[in-house]
Amino acid sequence: MNTPDDARPSRPGRRPGSSGTRDAILTAARERFARAGFDKTSIRAVAADAGVDPALVHHYFGTKQQLFAAVVELPIDPEIVLQQVDATPLDELGETMVRAVVSLWDSPEGAGAVALLRSLVAGGEVSLVRDFLLSVVFERIRSRIATDADDGRLRVALAASQMAGVAVTRKILRVGPITDLPVDQLAAAVGPTLQRYLTGDIGKGSPDHSEP
Amino acid sequence: MNTPDDARPSRPGRRPGSSGTRDAILTAARERFARAGFDKTSIRAVAADAGVDPALVHHYFGTKQQLFAAVVELPIDPEIVLQQVDATPLDELGETMVRAVVSLWDSPEGAGAVALLRSLVAGGEVSLVRDFLLSVVFERIRSRIATDADDGRLRVALAASQMAGVAVTRKILRVGPITDLPVDQLAAAVGPTLQRYLTGDIGKGSPDHSEP
Repeated sequence: MNTPDDARPSRPGRRPGSSGTRDAILTAARERFARAGFDKTSIRAVAADAGVDPALVHHYFGTKQQLFAAVVELPIDPEIVLQQVDATPLDELGETMVRAVVSLWDSPEGAGAVALLRSLVAGGEVSLVRDFLLSVVFERIRSRIATDADDGRLRVALAASQMAGVAVTRKILRVGPITDLPVDQLAAAVGPTLQRYLTGDIGKGSPDHSEP
Repeated sequence: MNTPDDARPSRPGRRPGSSGTRDAILTAARERFARAGFDKTSIRAVAADAGVDPALVHHYFGTKQQLFAAVVELPIDPEIVLQQVDATPLDELGETMVRAVVSLWDSPEGAGAVALLRSLVAGGEVSLVRDFLLSVVFERIRSRIATDADDGRLRVALAASQMAGVAVTRKILRVGPITDLPVDQLAAAVGPTLQRYLTGDIGKGSPDHSEP
């Protein structure tokens, strides 16, 4: 519809210049994340690069994780899924993760996440997003399952492999039986795989098969 | 090196015109596969489209499956993996498939297969290659596990999802713990997943959970 509102700027509440500051922070963050990786980038360093106070970076973007999500144009705040996962007992992680992640992909915002995976696989900022997934998303789960004998890195990577495969077959290649399966049935079928990868027997190096 | 051979045509054994015939068959096959799908395309129809005898199509390309592999520039003859899988007892399918497929990806020819997956995911001839995988590669396994109560379609699709995920994490995103894992350990970790998807309990609809 052609209402008078259409002629107005899209961010009427902003002070003049605030968009420039926000963009300067994003540019500085993009360059530093790409150069130093997710782990070694601090809000303080990004603020220094952009010539602003760190408080302003927090004001515009929130946490470092949220700043990163803005840089790679992640359409979803990963915190939403992570909080669900945090609240789940270890022995129910598998089904819960499948249900939470697939429900997210199937949501309207999920289309953006799938587009991101597609461009990633096609050769986008692979290493940066991979580091982010490993540093933030999987690290939260890894720290819960790690023991003295097993740091859990392979376990979360195996879980990630199955979730990546569900994403590719359900949302990109659109393999009928996977694409058409209700999320509950998908969680029932795939959940036990993630559960075994995270807390069960994964062969050599896992609790049941540890070497002497 | 600049030997006289460099100046010669790359296919010295060919009769003049044979390359044109071969290309005409490829073009006809590409168009018909794209229009009719893998299942409904016959060698006879491709030959008719190209204005040649069906025997010539077989002569240049072999089976319909091999013709398709040429059309999508599949770097590997899938028959090689399929024969390994055919010779494996049902209860060892999981580990054998992981070992066979991952060994192939890790081989020099595998680089081409990974490039194909990458372009597929990025938006290439998705439906065509998906149909091929489902009609040929997975169909051979599905026909072995199908029962009166379960046609096995979901089972092979789930197995495909895990293999797609291993491909993406090991070869494309290069997630350290998966990329660095020797094929034997990967088969030990991931094999049981494929085995359960193919012959075990996958929730609702599987033998252990069939509805009344």
